[in-house]
Amino acid sequence: MISGKQAKFIKSLQYKKYRKQEGAFVVEGKVSVLELLKSKLNVRNVYCTPAFSDEYNDRLSALTLKPDVVTEKDLVKVGSLKTNNAAIAVVDLPPDVQVIDKSRTVLVLDNINDPGNLGTIIRIADWYGIGQIVCSPDTTDAYSPKCIGATKGSFIRVSVTDISLPEFLNEYPNPVYGAMLSGKDVHEVKFSNPAALMIGNESHGIGSHLSEYITEPITIPKFGGAESLNAAIATAIICDVYRQS
Amino acid sequence: MISGKQAKFIKSLQYKKYRKQEGAFVVEGKVSVLELLKSKLNVRNVYCTPAFSDEYNDRLSALTLKPDVVTEKDLVKVGSLKTNNAAIAVVDLPPDVQVIDKSRTVLVLDNINDPGNLGTIIRIADWYGIGQIVCSPDTTDAYSPKCIGATKGSFIRVSVTDISLPEFLNEYPNPVYGAMLSGKDVHEVKFSNPAALMIGNESHGIGSHLSEYITEPITIPKFGGAESLNAAIATAIICDVYRQS
Repeated sequence: MISGKQAKFIKSLQYKKYRKQEGAFVVEGKVSVLELLKSKLNVRNVYCTPAFSDEYNDRLSALTLKPDVVTEKDLVKVGSLKTNNAAIAVVDLPPDVQVIDKSRTVLVLDNINDPGNLGTIIRIADWYGIGQIVCSPDTTDAYSPKCIGATKGSFIRVSVTDISLPEFLNEYPNPVYGAMLSGKDVHEVKFSNPAALMIGNESHGIGSHLSEYITEPITIPKFGGAESLNAAIATAIICDVYRQS
Repeated sequence: MISGKQAKFIKSLQYKKYRKQEGAFVVEGKVSVLELLKSKLNVRNVYCTPAFSDEYNDRLSALTLKPDVVTEKDLVKVGSLKTNNAAIAVVDLPPDVQVIDKSRTVLVLDNINDPGNLGTIIRIADWYGIGQIVCSPDTTDAYSPKCIGATKGSFIRVSVTDISLPEFLNEYPNPVYGAMLSGKDVHEVKFSNPAALMIGNESHGIGSHLSEYITEPITIPKFGGAESLNAAIATAIICDVYRQS
């Protein structure tokens, strides 16, 4: 059973304010929790169904703590998912200031608003082997349940750091490619490697205060009628072309 | 004001059963309704705020009907969006059986489950100038409010037809490229144009009963740790590579 106090605590972690205050976030569902168990993140608590406990007993026994076996109903009650017949974990937030390796490729996000988009972008970065993302401070929080869920477990392999982008870009020594409506056809760009790949807000693109840091504006050519592509879609295409160049 | 009867009718159109029964679907929000007003779709009713009515008076006056001016609160009450300070329209469903031009490129979707994914895929098809999509009958309905919203207006330019895929593929005369985990690197494929580009279910990929129709299985190469890419992301990369080949 999950006590009233525990339930209240887990639910509070749906809000950034309490995640910061408690230094913790929540991981929900089978795929995400199984990925979590492979990681070095510090797990504070695991609540799981008897079926999950039986099936993944070996992985769970590697933890220093004993999981609480609870009902599916309990998991749905305290979590953000509509269905969850597996598990919920409470995990220590990584430190605020993470080491960014400036000699490597980095994805730079300016004011991404939608947690589903950010989670999908983290998953894309992971697919393309880009292990570090820096975000403007007004980007949506990477540790919200919706964002963590959308990463499909990729949150364990990709570091996400909130930082002033002018400050970061000022010190980043490699070329910066920025996705813009009027830029060079991404397929014709001779990408440097490493590099920074920058994507902007869903509606407004990259903020004009960042223009001076962009070495080359890049564009995904359009063949039909849509006005724009979703930010995560644009990220994926740019990463794919970058990796092929 | 929206009468109780009208409200009940609009709300019922959130469900496929009633959309089929009434032959109508709902378009919500500024972007989508403005795109709708450019289309040849038959609009039955428009409910809009005074501000929307004033700003887009010229476009609204091209309709044969008079819009109902209502409050923002009314729009949110009868619609599916959390905020809507613009408009809701009730629109005739296009005919079930649409003409599929077999001499042209087509996107083929097998059992896409998530309405947000389907809407995003429609938007991607539109960006890449692919005007027709065929879907297996178990694909999520393209006229749900969530799917229509995710198309960002592209629903007016892309035809979506539910059809038995074996039946369709049997008669489609051009090569069929299917996204699979083990296929040829998409970047090394010599695509025919026109062609069918096929994407499968979010968890299980393309059904095995469709293998015999695939001319060439294709794969997006992975560089990192993520297990898979989202179906809409995979669609976008394949369309982009296809258009560049």
